[in-house]
Amino acid sequence: MDLPPRTVKRLSQYRRLLEKYKNIKEAHIFSHDLALQLNLTPVQVRRDMMLIGLSGNHRKGYNIQELVTHIGSVIDHKKGYNIAIIGMGNLGSAISTFIRNSNTQMNVVAGFDVDAKKINRKVAGIECFSIKDIRKKVDELNIHIAILTLPMDVALDTAHRLIHAGVKGILNFTSMHLDLPAGIYIKNYDIITSLEEIGFFIKAKD
Amino acid sequence: MDLPPRTVKRLSQYRRLLEKYKNIKEAHIFSHDLALQLNLTPVQVRRDMMLIGLSGNHRKGYNIQELVTHIGSVIDHKKGYNIAIIGMGNLGSAISTFIRNSNTQMNVVAGFDVDAKKINRKVAGIECFSIKDIRKKVDELNIHIAILTLPMDVALDTAHRLIHAGVKGILNFTSMHLDLPAGIYIKNYDIITSLEEIGFFIKAKD
Repeated sequence: MDLPPRTVKRLSQYRRLLEKYKNIKEAHIFSHDLALQLNLTPVQVRRDMMLIGLSGNHRKGYNIQELVTHIGSVIDHKKGYNIAIIGMGNLGSAISTFIRNSNTQMNVVAGFDVDAKKINRKVAGIECFSIKDIRKKVDELNIHIAILTLPMDVALDTAHRLIHAGVKGILNFTSMHLDLPAGIYIKNYDIITSLEEIGFFIKAKD
Repeated sequence: MDLPPRTVKRLSQYRRLLEKYKNIKEAHIFSHDLALQLNLTPVQVRRDMMLIGLSGNHRKGYNIQELVTHIGSVIDHKKGYNIAIIGMGNLGSAISTFIRNSNTQMNVVAGFDVDAKKINRKVAGIECFSIKDIRKKVDELNIHIAILTLPMDVALDTAHRLIHAGVKGILNFTSMHLDLPAGIYIKNYDIITSLEEIGFFIKAKD
């Protein structure tokens, strides 16, 4: 199914929000309730649902279990995704634990680092390998997505190695903005930039 | 100065990128080099610079030190920002360390948690207080921005307490999307949603 990135992001958000209702049988939700919780318009929510072929009941809204299952069938991969964390420092270890504690189809299968004290040991519960072994391990473990939590000066070089090894998606937490070849899906997220944006707007309000 | 959020985000990104050159005297950069590294158009970069009153030299481009200093004078607060991390688990601790190791105006001044083993002790190098003391401590420590790294089911309630205590900005890492009253600046970031978006697009390409 062909969907715009923003729609996929919202579908993922709907499902995340609805997780808390998943054990309630026959629970329903209206588009305007979903909209309210995500700061969207009800029209936007209904358009997203129509795009994936779902329509709600006029009197009861959407069946939540049906919605969650259907979103999964659209955005998930049957076998899940194998993820590697590149840079098993504090942030990499914490993100690894965070993902492993979330109810998702994302399997953290390996960490990579340059620190000899971490290599070939378990760090934060996952097997950690040498950055030098990226090529071999990406293939061997069938790694689809890499999360970059390493120093920014090696981010670009490491991203190229990952891509040559066969990784198709990258979530980049370094401040080195990456813009890689077509066919690779990248998202950049810089915590400091987010904080500076917040800082600017709260200053402007003072 | 009145600027749109996207401009502020880009200004922060320009500065983050240029940090590596900051010790080189008289270094210059062209708008198209900046644009290339951030996947923007040169016109966009020049427009941002004009908005903050900077113009480049036609033959040399922008003076990097001048650029970095000037961006700081526009987006930074003279005294810096005081930040609290709400939820000093793995992710909160790692983000705290990440910010403290970055060269920014963001001062992590406190952590908050419900775990008695953490309260009134140092966790990841910062003083950790009870969530119950939010009101008192936000005032006492003049906390401007809170980072939410706590379980999603208490996110909304805690956000309201923070705002009543005087916090003006929130960076929310929980999957509970927050949309709070006017006058409060919020950014939501959900790691799992980012990964699911990447997953969808690499699946679509298979």
